[in-house]
Amino acid sequence: MSASDNTAPFRASVNTLAGEIVDRLVSGADRYRVAVSRGSLGELLIDAGGKALGGVDAGLLLTEICMGGLGKVTLSHAPGAHKWPFWLTVSSNDPVVACLASQYAGWSLQHEKFFALGSGPGRAQARVEKLFEELSYKDQADRVTIVLESGSPPPKEVVEKVASKSGLSPDKVAFVYAPTQSLAGGVQVVGRVLEVALHKAHELHFPLENIVDGIATAPLSPPHPDFVQAMGRTNDAIIYAGRAHLFVKGPAAAAKELAEKLPSFNSRDYGRPFAEIFKAYKGDFYQIDGSLFSPAEALVTAVETGETFRAGKINEELLDKSFGG
Amino acid sequence: MSASDNTAPFRASVNTLAGEIVDRLVSGADRYRVAVSRGSLGELLIDAGGKALGGVDAGLLLTEICMGGLGKVTLSHAPGAHKWPFWLTVSSNDPVVACLASQYAGWSLQHEKFFALGSGPGRAQARVEKLFEELSYKDQADRVTIVLESGSPPPKEVVEKVASKSGLSPDKVAFVYAPTQSLAGGVQVVGRVLEVALHKAHELHFPLENIVDGIATAPLSPPHPDFVQAMGRTNDAIIYAGRAHLFVKGPAAAAKELAEKLPSFNSRDYGRPFAEIFKAYKGDFYQIDGSLFSPAEALVTAVETGETFRAGKINEELLDKSFGG
Amino acid sequence: MSASDNTAPFRASVNTLAGEIVDRLVSGADRYRVAVSRGSLGELLIDAGGKALGGVDAGLLLTEICMGGLGKVTLSHAPGAHKWPFWLTVSSNDPVVACLASQYAGWSLQHEKFFALGSGPGRAQARVEKLFEELSYKDQADRVTIVLESGSPPPKEVVEKVASKSGLSPDKVAFVYAPTQSLAGGVQVVGRVLEVALHKAHELHFPLENIVDGIATAPLSPPHPDFVQAMGRTNDAIIYAGRAHLFVKGPAAAAKELAEKLPSFNSRDYGRPFAEIFKAYKGDFYQIDGSLFSPAEALVTAVETGETFRAGKINEELLDKSFGG
Repeated sequence: MSASDNTAPFRASVNTLAGEIVDRLVSGADRYRVAVSRGSLGELLIDAGGKALGGVDAGLLLTEICMGGLGKVTLSHAPGAHKWPFWLTVSSNDPVVACLASQYAGWSLQHEKFFALGSGPGRAQARVEKLFEELSYKDQADRVTIVLESGSPPPKEVVEKVASKSGLSPDKVAFVYAPTQSLAGGVQVVGRVLEVALHKAHELHFPLENIVDGIATAPLSPPHPDFVQAMGRTNDAIIYAGRAHLFVKGPAAAAKELAEKLPSFNSRDYGRPFAEIFKAYKGDFYQIDGSLFSPAEALVTAVETGETFRAGKINEELLDKSFGG
Repeated sequence: MSASDNTAPFRASVNTLAGEIVDRLVSGADRYRVAVSRGSLGELLIDAGGKALGGVDAGLLLTEICMGGLGKVTLSHAPGAHKWPFWLTVSSNDPVVACLASQYAGWSLQHEKFFALGSGPGRAQARVEKLFEELSYKDQADRVTIVLESGSPPPKEVVEKVASKSGLSPDKVAFVYAPTQSLAGGVQVVGRVLEVALHKAHELHFPLENIVDGIATAPLSPPHPDFVQAMGRTNDAIIYAGRAHLFVKGPAAAAKELAEKLPSFNSRDYGRPFAEIFKAYKGDFYQIDGSLFSPAEALVTAVETGETFRAGKINEELLDKSFGG
Repeated sequence: MSASDNTAPFRASVNTLAGEIVDRLVSGADRYRVAVSRGSLGELLIDAGGKALGGVDAGLLLTEICMGGLGKVTLSHAPGAHKWPFWLTVSSNDPVVACLASQYAGWSLQHEKFFALGSGPGRAQARVEKLFEELSYKDQADRVTIVLESGSPPPKEVVEKVASKSGLSPDKVAFVYAPTQSLAGGVQVVGRVLEVALHKAHELHFPLENIVDGIATAPLSPPHPDFVQAMGRTNDAIIYAGRAHLFVKGPAAAAKELAEKLPSFNSRDYGRPFAEIFKAYKGDFYQIDGSLFSPAEALVTAVETGETFRAGKINEELLDKSFGG
């Protein structure tokens, strides 16, 4: 039965589900303060924070689009940080597909001066990344969506690439974009707190098919006009204050090891705001210890034994240092 | 005017409202990872945690189905227990109907080796339980739904019984089932935190027609593969960490008495994880003091005087002992 | 591009969006326990807490109607006050329009003994208040909705006035009403926590076009049968426990000044439950220092510099004194 098999070749179409949310953004363009247009190749362009104002609520929809319609993001008054009252809670029906096959910003889209890491369900149709060698999920929708952390729309060469790799004409491709400095863009990155936990689990070689469910939370970071600072804050929200609870199959020992290794404190780069780390490495992203990208605290429940393991904790001091105020 | 009368014979149809959520589960079977089929009599079967994987989000829908579409369940990062960050908040438009006429697991459905306590809106159409002598609500829908805390579908004799008592053919009956050990099943039981408060109020002979509103919360319990441990944890989430706020009509003295008597600490069996209590009584459920089944803390506001009374509190030590980790 | 311009003449129609929520209340009248009827001029009347029972969930919808469909209100188990576990979180796609052009209770509707301050999206179509000299937003919908903090429907003279000022026939006008003493009415007032922050910012002459986003939270206040006490509690929920986070454009100095001046502690009348203050002024509302009406705590992020400023804090002692219990 496909519904019960975590590695089944067919599942809900992340592009079709995300497309429904894209339609809500389009029909509610005025209320979400996003700008909708068609590009030169007929591609759908939704500006949610570049020239358009966007906002926190647009960012929540962006996050759900990124998760291919398989995730839910809510904003609430939550504990965890004395100074920062509003937190995002992210859950997913199907975290491996939602977070890794869809939400992970893994598709490098470049042309001349334009560079952005594409995220969102379009990745699961194009499947050009190495990561898809390990993910059986494949989408075959009649429309696809890519989310870009960018203040401007992609050039036509990027549009053509996405369309071609998706097996669709450009008018069947939607790009939703917002820079990290914008409210919507910031929400969209903090909304990756569950994805970051999944990705770290994958880096730790934890078998993805054993991750059956997950919930995570992180504080809404205040935006910053400087890209490095903005990126730093969204990352710090996760690294220094994110909390993730994963539910996994398999032996308790593996769950215990995952819980212990997952939190960000394991990284050699832990202990400074992300923007400082980034500058220390002279902006060379790939010099940063990859194990830094994970929530501050991890809970892992081994569903086959009922044991829960945990490690890490919120670091309010660093959060305040990063967010300011 | 019927809308203003808490005991009016006609109200929203809990089966019709729940049926809309059942339809969402069916059309979203892939994304919620539930398995949908038709049984030998044409009954609709939705496996949300037996052979199918299900998950937390499927459990949230299961809870809303149980409440006959008259309740709302959300998951958020909440205070209350240091070690368990994610809590369910349950509210209801109409708590007596949602919780007692629909959600309460009161219909004993047995055939040979199969035994399950049926919950959900189908109960309010069949009305075979003694409890319905005190509930005026009666549903007359053209489809009904029963939720079963079970890993397998009901035998045809049970299907026939539910259909016959509902005055419908079996193809108009839906069964949604998940065992307590599953993620969806666990959520579904913890989601009873408001129902348990209502039921205890009823046991205390508080007049149900005076309960006008209610909200409650409890932590998501980690699943356990052993039925007794799994059941224990879902109960302990409520007994040792549930918080309920009821709004009642009538004299303040009655509200005060309700607040004082409602919390679980009043029970002689309070003070050990539920699984231990259950084993101490050698698995004879009916030996357990019924007054144990209630939230840890109760707030009762007497809306006619504006006074709020409270008693009980979260017992983190016992929660941690029950949940482990 | 209109979507990106905070003062653009055209935006989403708050009456059209609110109308969709009104339709949900009407079709769900039984489940929300509201009474729907037509008045003598054909106006739509929805009683959500006068003779009808209503409830917390009806109140959440009322709040979203008040915000012209541009706001989201959720209830969760939240920190902030030890004794009061359930809080409302209010966010908005477009806070200036949602809160000031729609939600603010600024339209004085009087005829003989009937007096109520009209709130909701109908205000933005009638535009009879002085406030609209400073708000460019104008609605031109084919139906309008006014929310009244009242236990009874408006007299026909008030209906005629609203219809006439809206350029519509009375059958195109909906009135949703609930007294402050009711559950729905109380939720609806506490749900103004973001609006109150916006209004105070306006009183402080902060340029509204610089407010780009906002989120706020306040505890659900227990209802009280006495109007003054009920009003006092809903106000105290905001004044002594409300927390608002605004995101603003413009210089950091202006954001800092806004954060410092916004909280209620700046008022000479701060320090007593609102009902006491009201009585001390012998019920003359306009004697009360206007600067009291604001959240207890304000966070203001200057999005152009990335700085966050804050002032004020929750006053649990006064909250408990006001709420009782």
